[in-house]
Amino acid sequence: MGDWLRDGPVVVTGGAGAIGSVLVRALLGRGATVRVIDNLSGGRREHLPVPDGRLSVTVADLREPETYAAAFRGASAIWHLAANPDIRLGTKDPRIDLEHGTVATFQVLELARKENVRRVMYSSSSVVYGAPKVFPTPEEYGPLEPESMYAASKLAAEGLCSAYAHSYGLRTDLFRFANIIGPAMTHGVLPDFFDKLARDPTRLEVLGDGRQAKSYLRTEDCVDGMLAVADRDLGPVTIHNLGTTDRISVREIAEKVVAAHGGRARIEYTGGARGWVGDVPQQLLAIDRIRALGWHPRYTSAGAIDRTIEELASARGVHAT
Amino acid sequence: MGDWLRDGPVVVTGGAGAIGSVLVRALLGRGATVRVIDNLSGGRREHLPVPDGRLSVTVADLREPETYAAAFRGASAIWHLAANPDIRLGTKDPRIDLEHGTVATFQVLELARKENVRRVMYSSSSVVYGAPKVFPTPEEYGPLEPESMYAASKLAAEGLCSAYAHSYGLRTDLFRFANIIGPAMTHGVLPDFFDKLARDPTRLEVLGDGRQAKSYLRTEDCVDGMLAVADRDLGPVTIHNLGTTDRISVREIAEKVVAAHGGRARIEYTGGARGWVGDVPQQLLAIDRIRALGWHPRYTSAGAIDRTIEELASARGVHAT
Repeated sequence: MGDWLRDGPVVVTGGAGAIGSVLVRALLGRGATVRVIDNLSGGRREHLPVPDGRLSVTVADLREPETYAAAFRGASAIWHLAANPDIRLGTKDPRIDLEHGTVATFQVLELARKENVRRVMYSSSSVVYGAPKVFPTPEEYGPLEPESMYAASKLAAEGLCSAYAHSYGLRTDLFRFANIIGPAMTHGVLPDFFDKLARDPTRLEVLGDGRQAKSYLRTEDCVDGMLAVADRDLGPVTIHNLGTTDRISVREIAEKVVAAHGGRARIEYTGGARGWVGDVPQQLLAIDRIRALGWHPRYTSAGAIDRTIEELASARGVHAT
Repeated sequence: MGDWLRDGPVVVTGGAGAIGSVLVRALLGRGATVRVIDNLSGGRREHLPVPDGRLSVTVADLREPETYAAAFRGASAIWHLAANPDIRLGTKDPRIDLEHGTVATFQVLELARKENVRRVMYSSSSVVYGAPKVFPTPEEYGPLEPESMYAASKLAAEGLCSAYAHSYGLRTDLFRFANIIGPAMTHGVLPDFFDKLARDPTRLEVLGDGRQAKSYLRTEDCVDGMLAVADRDLGPVTIHNLGTTDRISVREIAEKVVAAHGGRARIEYTGGARGWVGDVPQQLLAIDRIRALGWHPRYTSAGAIDRTIEELASARGVHAT
């Protein structure tokens, strides 16, 4: 089963994104030939190495399989990471996650079936748990009551992957991500805080009461975890949480970001347990299952936040003094 | 909350179907004004009373909301029961359940949101559990690993209902059905066996090894159960299993159907634990949650099978001697 890396090219949808581009480099580092498909809505070419004999990039909309079918031909595995990264946008226009999440995933699976690609790895999310009552939340947790269109599309896509695995004999690995952070992220709490302070260095508006507490995983830890699962000879459908064992509050993150900017900004909370409609205020995943495979995150949530703040501060020329 | 019955017309999608038509009669009996939307692919007009001031029928495809938007106007509740009823068809053409399950449900929810309809009841299925390891299976069971495109579309639709409830403030009741049977069913084990014996009275081919064992619920019990939940003042998202506490094997059902035909047919098993790709061989739902609301099925699985066999035999002029 480890041969998915060598039996043919490996396709990465969303491969120009913040997580996808880290995965692409890891795959290239392991000797794979990689075909990226990305619509470049969130991803950027400059996140990737210059294409060569081992790396190709197809700019395409996943809803139109005829535009990228060639990239699936002869492939040994599909890493399907592409999605709308903006939960709040999905609440404003509920069609976005249906189209770019659920329907796009269907087209990817259907093309994989037609092209006889036997492995599909999918980047799901902890948001499929809705607002769980058990922490840390294990993969067996139910009922799954997604609270946003984004979360609904992740659950729908998991179901499609599972049905394709059982009905058509492919293998699928489903990864439920904690909040993934890294220097290339365009969405999420850190880019949001940096953007706000760039606009107005005197105040930082925080959505919610700041007591939302979640676990954060670095992109490189996330990619290592996925590869640890993909390399194992497991069943037709695997589900693995990917996160850290600690969490950190939005208030602490805000204070760290303000400190990185010199500590002068006043933090203002908009109030309420949820930062926005569909926000999941508490998130901590049980990661026993993937740790039993030998994988451990190198960064804690707090460490991942610190490291990413350093990188963003450096990239944006922000100084603490 | 009980006012959903009186605050405006009640919409029933799939209202001309085997379950929908029983629901429509129950709603009319309780004084509601009912608007049926059905594409008449599985449903039939003759299942319904003649339309009058309290009952209208719109023939429409749920994927095209502009063709039935008028039926949602001023409505107080939507019962969304329409779906492709044929699991095996969905395996042959995976687009059917995506389109008539997931996308149709999205359009129904989106129109409900636009027309400010505050209640959506949805007919999900026990198949969302995949092949569970716990029997009877409770609503909290996880992970959910659907095995057919039909099951994937049910899970996707549950997720959409939940997201709409949390994001846009409507209330949704999700019902996970055991095998529902009644005289108007066009699909499932009983019509299948009757059709086969009509074609060849000497033999009955049974898909699988006959040891598949499931619980069967009569349409009228199913409708009573759904109404018992809808009448209560519960949370924004409710999930209830609907089934009986016993199960019956396919072998026993085959023997009962053969006996009803005079006992002359030889029963031949195709073998294998599953009758077809995506078949869930064992199904028994925990129904404690809905029983706590005061609802109990009147028929056991065996009783429901017997009653439905009598009705089908009578309707088709089949005699035991």
